[in-house]
Amino acid sequence: MKVTSTNPATGERRELDVDETTPEQVAEASTRARRASHEYARRPLDWRQALLRAMAEELEADAPSLVATAQVETALPEARLRGELARTAFQFRFFADVVRDGAFLGASIDEATDSPMGPLPDLRRVKVPLGPVAVFGSSNFPFAFSVPGGDTASALAAGCAVVIKAHPAHPETSVACAAALERAAVRRGAPEGLVSLVFGLDAGTALVQAPAIAGVGFTGSVAAGRALWALAHAREVPIPFYGELGSANPLVVTPAAARERARAIGEGIAGSVALGAGQFCTKPGLIFVPTGGDGDDLVEALGAQLGEGGSVTLLSEGIAENFRRGARALERDGGATVLVGEAWGGAAHTWARLLEVDAQRFAGERALHAECFGPLAVVVRYGGPDELRTALEAAEPALTFSAHVAEVDPDAAWLVELGAGRAGRVVVNGYPTGVGVSWSMHHGGPWPATTAAWATSVGAAAIERWLRPVAYQAVPEGLLPPALRDENVLGIARRVNGRLQPGP
Amino acid sequence: MKVTSTNPATGERRELDVDETTPEQVAEASTRARRASHEYARRPLDWRQALLRAMAEELEADAPSLVATAQVETALPEARLRGELARTAFQFRFFADVVRDGAFLGASIDEATDSPMGPLPDLRRVKVPLGPVAVFGSSNFPFAFSVPGGDTASALAAGCAVVIKAHPAHPETSVACAAALERAAVRRGAPEGLVSLVFGLDAGTALVQAPAIAGVGFTGSVAAGRALWALAHAREVPIPFYGELGSANPLVVTPAAARERARAIGEGIAGSVALGAGQFCTKPGLIFVPTGGDGDDLVEALGAQLGEGGSVTLLSEGIAENFRRGARALERDGGATVLVGEAWGGAAHTWARLLEVDAQRFAGERALHAECFGPLAVVVRYGGPDELRTALEAAEPALTFSAHVAEVDPDAAWLVELGAGRAGRVVVNGYPTGVGVSWSMHHGGPWPATTAAWATSVGAAAIERWLRPVAYQAVPEGLLPPALRDENVLGIARRVNGRLQPGP
Repeated sequence: MKVTSTNPATGERRELDVDETTPEQVAEASTRARRASHEYARRPLDWRQALLRAMAEELEADAPSLVATAQVETALPEARLRGELARTAFQFRFFADVVRDGAFLGASIDEATDSPMGPLPDLRRVKVPLGPVAVFGSSNFPFAFSVPGGDTASALAAGCAVVIKAHPAHPETSVACAAALERAAVRRGAPEGLVSLVFGLDAGTALVQAPAIAGVGFTGSVAAGRALWALAHAREVPIPFYGELGSANPLVVTPAAARERARAIGEGIAGSVALGAGQFCTKPGLIFVPTGGDGDDLVEALGAQLGEGGSVTLLSEGIAENFRRGARALERDGGATVLVGEAWGGAAHTWARLLEVDAQRFAGERALHAECFGPLAVVVRYGGPDELRTALEAAEPALTFSAHVAEVDPDAAWLVELGAGRAGRVVVNGYPTGVGVSWSMHHGGPWPATTAAWATSVGAAAIERWLRPVAYQAVPEGLLPPALRDENVLGIARRVNGRLQPGP
Repeated sequence: MKVTSTNPATGERRELDVDETTPEQVAEASTRARRASHEYARRPLDWRQALLRAMAEELEADAPSLVATAQVETALPEARLRGELARTAFQFRFFADVVRDGAFLGASIDEATDSPMGPLPDLRRVKVPLGPVAVFGSSNFPFAFSVPGGDTASALAAGCAVVIKAHPAHPETSVACAAALERAAVRRGAPEGLVSLVFGLDAGTALVQAPAIAGVGFTGSVAAGRALWALAHAREVPIPFYGELGSANPLVVTPAAARERARAIGEGIAGSVALGAGQFCTKPGLIFVPTGGDGDDLVEALGAQLGEGGSVTLLSEGIAENFRRGARALERDGGATVLVGEAWGGAAHTWARLLEVDAQRFAGERALHAECFGPLAVVVRYGGPDELRTALEAAEPALTFSAHVAEVDPDAAWLVELGAGRAGRVVVNGYPTGVGVSWSMHHGGPWPATTAAWATSVGAAAIERWLRPVAYQAVPEGLLPPALRDENVLGIARRVNGRLQPGP
């Protein structure tokens, strides 16, 4: 069956000259990836860095064409896509820096010694690549979280081959991005099969089940993520599954903050909710606002700005249908009141919605806790700190937790502490939608935000998902990996006899 | 129902004045542990260190009584138990050092800056405790891998309360060890419920399912581990399950090594197989020996020494029954020849066994790949490097992989590389049974050796299982955790603007 590309703005469908991948072809790609992984893991780290930089260059060289293709398939604005592609190229260079830094190897050397427990042999530990990684990109970032996205870049940085399941919402963009990565691979003489692409729902299932695959990176819905997560565990040899799933992203405005700057915060929230038509995993979906006049002003400013946004085109008809279904569930099953919601729209088109509910109802009604992917937020009005705390503890753990506080604010400390207990990132006086590629970023969180709270899918630490440690006991110098030789030939940070030594 | 303690040497059973824990009591202990965890996580790191050191002291203060109790319940020799208890106390002090070191927090600070992607806010990351941890101790180390063992010490070091499921093979030892930990907790004024103990199979199931529990550490059989692992994932909110399961631990002798020192290696292997009556998760269970005269000499020396060991008492009748069942399966289903095997014994008593099979048969017969817990090894005779490689790749991944090689040895390099690909620790010219508590130790490995190849249950990195990162974005200095303040008040290693800075 041919793969189809759909323009969500017009509904026009085109058949691509690409077939859905058969389970046999998935098995072949995975086996090739295993061979490639094995060979790739033996290449020096500076070779790996050069490959990642070459991939950044090839993506940039093809930018005008990639952006144009993605625009047709996603209905996202050109400027946004240009920025996203720049970020995606930056991400490959950033992971080249992470490889050069070398701390990700966790190298540790304990020389033979006498201990209170008797003599201890020479023991050295380093992290090695896990093996071929399956990557499931998301619909909402056709570059940064898709074929050339963070999972692909971090897995390649870790020394793993990747087999990528193309997202059906942008297959032509996926083909073009994979071709750019492949050009870099060929240019650098990478082992054949280091990066490959498969298409179709059945191919995705077969990929998670392929014996050669050693781990999975997934960004998408709770339902799809949980199903694939279960498959990864039902294998004869289970493999780690790193899924970034749904997140309603609570944002709290304290009474003191609302008193100080109600309208500015309301407008800021509107901008964050509407960004990318609300199609961000970090969109603030639950806005906790105090009852009373300041809160009313804030909600009015938020609603006014959201209402001015006009009709938007979502990434696909399917996403638009899910958006309408999710919004109806919040309104009908959850009993939320509609403050803004011009019309439902049709096909991939819709309008932003703003709902409202009181905190007591929110705390007791699970139908209100679900993420609704798209341009929608639920305002939760609370009467005091106890009501607020109960409502926040009823909400599901999330990728982010934001608090808008005043300079002197009795609620600031407990909100930051509560947020750190229930989210992967705590934002003060800001908006959660920007996720920078950096050393300190953590883009993760407790279930159901992700399937593994220790892991991140953005930032330097994303590489850690694709590694496992190996200890070498009394292994002769000549047989040790370079990172563990007596002389620090890689110039990396290592722990030696318990003391951390930074690289030169 | 009362808990029963059995003396495996005599078969004598005594009822203890302890009831099996009801599911309601498990829920209460877990809820108390959640409250305790919350309070404990807020205490300063030096308070945490002092608690761990106090626990070491209380264990040592009670050493004669603890060792005597364990001796009756496990039939392990007094000297071994004394050494194990010393190691267990050392482990608490070691984790106090790990806490003081502070690198486990993974603290990283990125100050606000302009990037190629636009302005980035101030972003700081640190790891926080996961919450209450359920610990399932093993039968074979009544101290070091049980109530006061590595999972308990690493979870407490991470800032998590623990609820421990007592192993039925040494309940009285478990009660006495928990009492020692509790004395330390009371002495230091720890929050109530920081360490608690539950008894019984149903209590173990209820513990993994308790909503308050945030993670599980398990050491034991593949069957029990896989069942609990499935339970942890079937929860409404799944939790991480770190299981150290079975491992057959291949040990290879190259032709060059056999030529050089056949008898010495044979005797060394016998010592490692018989240590603790073979009841080590790191016991070398598969011994790959070349065909021909040198190999014959080695096997003869190994067999002679194993045969001289006399009758041994295993940890329990159940373990002895499983040992006999496992050995029979290797012989009857696997077709292995018995080289040494005086008699089967009865109750908890048995004799060491040495089996032999050729490499081709081994490669094709899965019945030969299972771990047999107890004093037994299977010698696999190989004709050349291809046969050896095929057999090694047929064996299951393991905790350890050992190779005995000559100084100049054509097989050394590929064996070390193959071992690193299929085990958590590679040992050259040594034996895998010793697992030192140290900075570089990795005690883990690919499935089925463990359920999470990235994690270790021994050594400094064991703490990482009980942590998750949180990023703080634009959070005011006064609301940041101490590890992330501008001034390095904890004196720990941190990454600042991408550069790793060791502590002072």
